[in-house]
Amino acid sequence: MVVSREIRLKKRPTGMPTHENFELTEAQIPGLSKGEYLVRNIWMSVDPYMRGRMTERKSYVPPFEVGKALEGGCIGKVVESKNDQLAVGDHVLGTRGWREYWISDGSSISSDVSKIDPNIGSIQSFLGIFGMTGLTAYVGLLKIGQLKEAETVFVSAASGAVGSIACQIAKINGCYVIGSAGSNDKVKWLINEAGVDYAFNYKELKNSISAELGKIDKTTAGIDLYFDNVGGNHLEAALDQMKPFSRIILCGMISQYNETSPTPGPSNMFVAITKRLKLQGFIVRDHFDTLNQFHTDMSKWVTKGKIKWKETIFEGLENAPNAFIALFNGETFGKTIVRIGPNQD
Amino acid sequence: MVVSREIRLKKRPTGMPTHENFELTEAQIPGLSKGEYLVRNIWMSVDPYMRGRMTERKSYVPPFEVGKALEGGCIGKVVESKNDQLAVGDHVLGTRGWREYWISDGSSISSDVSKIDPNIGSIQSFLGIFGMTGLTAYVGLLKIGQLKEAETVFVSAASGAVGSIACQIAKINGCYVIGSAGSNDKVKWLINEAGVDYAFNYKELKNSISAELGKIDKTTAGIDLYFDNVGGNHLEAALDQMKPFSRIILCGMISQYNETSPTPGPSNMFVAITKRLKLQGFIVRDHFDTLNQFHTDMSKWVTKGKIKWKETIFEGLENAPNAFIALFNGETFGKTIVRIGPNQD
Repeated sequence: MVVSREIRLKKRPTGMPTHENFELTEAQIPGLSKGEYLVRNIWMSVDPYMRGRMTERKSYVPPFEVGKALEGGCIGKVVESKNDQLAVGDHVLGTRGWREYWISDGSSISSDVSKIDPNIGSIQSFLGIFGMTGLTAYVGLLKIGQLKEAETVFVSAASGAVGSIACQIAKINGCYVIGSAGSNDKVKWLINEAGVDYAFNYKELKNSISAELGKIDKTTAGIDLYFDNVGGNHLEAALDQMKPFSRIILCGMISQYNETSPTPGPSNMFVAITKRLKLQGFIVRDHFDTLNQFHTDMSKWVTKGKIKWKETIFEGLENAPNAFIALFNGETFGKTIVRIGPNQD
Repeated sequence: MVVSREIRLKKRPTGMPTHENFELTEAQIPGLSKGEYLVRNIWMSVDPYMRGRMTERKSYVPPFEVGKALEGGCIGKVVESKNDQLAVGDHVLGTRGWREYWISDGSSISSDVSKIDPNIGSIQSFLGIFGMTGLTAYVGLLKIGQLKEAETVFVSAASGAVGSIACQIAKINGCYVIGSAGSNDKVKWLINEAGVDYAFNYKELKNSISAELGKIDKTTAGIDLYFDNVGGNHLEAALDQMKPFSRIILCGMISQYNETSPTPGPSNMFVAITKRLKLQGFIVRDHFDTLNQFHTDMSKWVTKGKIKWKETIFEGLENAPNAFIALFNGETFGKTIVRIGPNQD
């Protein structure tokens, strides 16, 4: 019998999540039935969208249940197998993070689990650049946003997991890229490493975000595509500075996730009419049919050194709540992941 | 020399327009040069979008100038002509309302002026059902909104000029149509005359607009297409009740036009992500290439009795400011027009 530590949702958060919302506990893992395999997790992802699942509400995925282990992207290794398709030592990408061990729930590789090739990149890159994070940036810009060469693109939370990749995909497409981030170090990285054309620290602006974008406006005559990861005042500022017939891709609204009461939306929605804007929300899970094309393109870009990424690593399952909370404090940089165990046995 | 009374913008309004913003005065109309023609206006249109042009700001059309006559859709009759294409007695649709007489500014029929056929409908119907008003509803639903058979469509300001036509085009397409209006008489008309499936008076709801739409929701499982003429709380309520992958057409935001300070936008913009919504603004003047198809369809529908319309008529140029102000008081019903002079000479 394997004992697996896991993090459960103890209490639904109100506002900003705290340690009181989480509980580290143990579960007994039963023996395998025919067709099953046992996975030991090595890495897990923390993502802002998980905050939404901690609230009891109707959404595209059911909310997490109080008293049960949380879920999310994870990379693990098969340590025992009664399944023909997966052998001991294989690496898999799954959806059952926040725990040390899990047993497959189907008799074969399901849509929730895929085998990964550790020769393509580091195994944890399948949570980031080669995973949902990278696919989100790719789908948002290219499929939803219909990005064109040489456009002016604004990305908020530009040094975040998705934002940093979005910036660089836009650069690969010859775009003029503007990034907003929450620290001077992040701004430096965006300019020096990610190659964005203009970046600013929104926390240290003398004027409004709109005024800052307006300065750039004079160079580019406005934004063609805004990739919104933040919502709130960033969305309002972008609306001010969009070109006529331009597009806003609604990917995330991290500024809103911990609000305890409804916060006002953009006061200038009317410009969506006068400028004939299109605003479109999307969820990456609707676009798994794009995975192969994405892997092909991303491998090519990474091999050519055209995409760089940052990781913020928290050590140990017990630090997963810290990692998650840090997402909303602006303490993380790039993709935030938790090392649950060693890759070697 | 012809003397023409005209309404000038005396002072830009702050908030709700009042009589102080308008001035009735006279202009001298010079003699015609070769290629020109003189038009006597019979009807003029007042439209909510004109409020935007009274404010000094960058937009898709330049603002009205203080001290100059206002402009807008008008129907007139050629009373003198040195132009080969237009003869005395011809009816024209133009853009120089708010005055009794005007002279063509080009040597031929320009994009701003077209000859109308008084056999198709009443001449004033070219300001409404057969004019920009009808085209706005047509383009918004069919071209921007990509309306499909049997969808659930919500229209705000549903008894207004554009809204009432949008409701009926949706009904022609076999849709389930919900309309919001500001009086019980309007609600009755929507159900009994326009044939909408469900209508409510948003001023007399016991609960919120969202709750009202939520009741209907149980019948239809949500809204496929929201045709927004109002913005504000209507937009927020619709966001709550949209189906996944549905569309919001941003046509007007009459609730916002007279606000003197920025008013908060929808607090629930985040659902645009979780529901993968598309919000799109449009302006009818970008879609004049659809005019022929629109006239063909609309003539057919009107002939078959499938579209009804209401007109609110104000008598005399001097009442044009009253007509305009009434748009924002909820006092008008259907298309609001001003009779400037008789059709007969």
